[in-house]
Amino acid sequence: MSAGWFRRRFLPGVAGGPLPAPRSPRPRASPVPYRRPRFLRGSGSCPGTPDAPRRPDARPVRCPARGRTLPWNAGYAEIINAEKSEFNEDQAACGKLCIRRCEFGPEEDQEWLTLCPEEFLTGHYWALFDGHGGPAAAILAANTLHSCLRRQLEAIGEGMVATQPPMHLSGHCVCPSDPQFVEEKGIRTEDLVIGALESAFQECDEVIGRELEAAGQVGGCTALVAVSLKGKLYVANAGDSRAILVRRDEVRPLSSEFTPESERQRIQQLAFVYPELLADEFTRLEFPRRLKGDDLGQKVLFRDHYMSGWLGYWEHWPSPGAWETISSESWIQTFNSSPSCSLSHRLNLQVTVLDLDQLELQEEDVVVMATDGLWDVLSNEQVARLVRSFLPGNQEDPHRFSELAQMLIHSTQGKDGNPTEEGQVSYDDVSVFVIPLYSQSQGSSGH
Amino acid sequence: MSAGWFRRRFLPGVAGGPLPAPRSPRPRASPVPYRRPRFLRGSGSCPGTPDAPRRPDARPVRCPARGRTLPWNAGYAEIINAEKSEFNEDQAACGKLCIRRCEFGPEEDQEWLTLCPEEFLTGHYWALFDGHGGPAAAILAANTLHSCLRRQLEAIGEGMVATQPPMHLSGHCVCPSDPQFVEEKGIRTEDLVIGALESAFQECDEVIGRELEAAGQVGGCTALVAVSLKGKLYVANAGDSRAILVRRDEVRPLSSEFTPESERQRIQQLAFVYPELLADEFTRLEFPRRLKGDDLGQKVLFRDHYMSGWLGYWEHWPSPGAWETISSESWIQTFNSSPSCSLSHRLNLQVTVLDLDQLELQEEDVVVMATDGLWDVLSNEQVARLVRSFLPGNQEDPHRFSELAQMLIHSTQGKDGNPTEEGQVSYDDVSVFVIPLYSQSQGSSGH
Repeated sequence: MSAGWFRRRFLPGVAGGPLPAPRSPRPRASPVPYRRPRFLRGSGSCPGTPDAPRRPDARPVRCPARGRTLPWNAGYAEIINAEKSEFNEDQAACGKLCIRRCEFGPEEDQEWLTLCPEEFLTGHYWALFDGHGGPAAAILAANTLHSCLRRQLEAIGEGMVATQPPMHLSGHCVCPSDPQFVEEKGIRTEDLVIGALESAFQECDEVIGRELEAAGQVGGCTALVAVSLKGKLYVANAGDSRAILVRRDEVRPLSSEFTPESERQRIQQLAFVYPELLADEFTRLEFPRRLKGDDLGQKVLFRDHYMSGWLGYWEHWPSPGAWETISSESWIQTFNSSPSCSLSHRLNLQVTVLDLDQLELQEEDVVVMATDGLWDVLSNEQVARLVRSFLPGNQEDPHRFSELAQMLIHSTQGKDGNPTEEGQVSYDDVSVFVIPLYSQSQGSSGH
Repeated sequence: MSAGWFRRRFLPGVAGGPLPAPRSPRPRASPVPYRRPRFLRGSGSCPGTPDAPRRPDARPVRCPARGRTLPWNAGYAEIINAEKSEFNEDQAACGKLCIRRCEFGPEEDQEWLTLCPEEFLTGHYWALFDGHGGPAAAILAANTLHSCLRRQLEAIGEGMVATQPPMHLSGHCVCPSDPQFVEEKGIRTEDLVIGALESAFQECDEVIGRELEAAGQVGGCTALVAVSLKGKLYVANAGDSRAILVRRDEVRPLSSEFTPESERQRIQQLAFVYPELLADEFTRLEFPRRLKGDDLGQKVLFRDHYMSGWLGYWEHWPSPGAWETISSESWIQTFNSSPSCSLSHRLNLQVTVLDLDQLELQEEDVVVMATDGLWDVLSNEQVARLVRSFLPGNQEDPHRFSELAQMLIHSTQGKDGNPTEEGQVSYDDVSVFVIPLYSQSQGSSGH
């Protein structure tokens, strides 16, 4: 990643799994050598009893089962390690989401619910995590987030299949005008899935924060998650990964990156509210460049958390030694890695919803999800051109989507005669999912 | 105002002037009877010595000098009191901004500056304030903000007339690459004016907060400010007032309103960070409707500060009696009026810049600024139609812009044969400025 600072820790703690010991490699992953591509193909079903946390059994470096075809045609990932760290900072997860039914007990007055063992909704889940400060947070996120999401979706229960969600889980109206209030607020079923995603990120963030703190570790990761459920594709993003929809006549971004500029005021404001995070080493102010001794006492251009413009010739200098500013990568790293204060509650998650049923999908319509290692050297349009040039000639190949993911990564490595137009080469970890949408709209739109 | 809650206190304390005593009318304003329109026409020059704070000598209800023509053709305001309170909650201010030159002393090592008595830049200033919880904050803002802005602009000094602002006020480079850093950050002269506006709001907010607290008063106000300076019009907005540009073939919004939805997460997050503001009376959570006793123990739809979607079925109830939610006006009123915690640092000011020199302005191009009393019953397009139907037939009338402002207000009162298309009538205070742009671009683009 070229601008590592916005890989902040926002996905803290595994549910039940041991953490890698500080500074040691993670226990369940084997190292991936530089530029040696490997494949992720998630398994088709979630193992485990209904009571145990289910998780996709595929990890990019744990399960490099090249060439396996997913029964549910979930998508294909390729990952490459740029050897910035001994182990991949990029992590991926995918799998089937099996959501069980919540049922109420017979007594109306005392509400309680049971989870029936049978699935009543199934969906699919893809996730890319790009770690900073080591792979720990990304591994924890890849092991945790889907479980959080499944629990949140199960808590919605029947609300997810109703035309309009009820105000109460029980479904009966406490107040006769309850449906009207729900309608006035414009609450739709998809808002519940969005809420479940947001709450799952929140829960996962808190869990990872606790786990990292307990293990004396620091670090963070980005997360890009796609969920296919009941004919809709939900794309949730926090960080600088990106998902795009590629069709014959259309390239549509499905996520927006978090950039230093988009995050500046949020983080400056955090520093304003929690000045202890600055630890007398940093100032929350931004300057055009890093300050030097010669600047002391001068009136220098700056901006604070409430400013989009620049002003003004700041007269109150921080104590010497506290001149590291927000434009410095280390500032953010320190800030985000502080174990004493979880920043999770300030996550600005973006969720985009794609209605697959409205799209009149063609067989070659795909979503490409990738970490910044790809987007640093290929534009959306360049990726779309590569997709369109590859798929039509490989219609009979059952592995064409995984080969497309592989080809996209190779394009960032100056291989396969597909270098970028500017001849750029990525020196970052690169991870790509290619998700064929046609099979999603055909096979997974309901029970 | 129909949705009073987002009139939050964000502009606290007069600099040097006495505050109205608690619950008593302001000392310097006379009451305005219901629906009796009065005119504001600001005076042309700023009285006072260079060292004294200069202020426009016009207030809507202090100086209703109907029919006076402004030498600098500054714009025309009309104000009407809806008798929600004995005195106007809407307040206005306008005047000439006279910016003096800052000069450095001869000693390079010891930087100091003097303010020369001569003006070196002039601009124009228009502001509308719409109070809630009484007129105190709006009056304070109308008396204070322009002084704060002038000071901030004077602190920029020569930076405002340079092609590219220097990193240091002294102009000499501490580091040879300073201009390059300024260029890399994309800092332009207009960013300094934006920064000055943001800092002026911030300073004014803090002053008013102190003054209100000292006087044992509460309340708040919105602010919409336009500044014409060196061929550009800067429009800064916080609240639900609105400014639009009306030309022959174009209607362009120059501000965005703060709505309950746009502010929800910001205010919920404040409540998360400062739970003491909730005073055990409120919850930061939003529900589809106000909670009732029957809801107790049920799992109800909600959303928290980190959610754009809804989830929930929330299982952790606040203590009974703390069910007032963010959708309630009183929640916001209480939250914003709390004297124990200034919310000023969380102002999300929006600043739009209009380059007058690029517009090829015609004589009838105007900016219409108004409080929500107008926009609640007239759309941008309806206002534009009224402007275009009025001005061409009154080209010889020297008072046509003030008559247009008057006509716009009368249109919200069901008078003058110009009711709104839906026949709506405003029962709120209404204030309107009409700013003719042609004279601005001709007369005030420099020294």
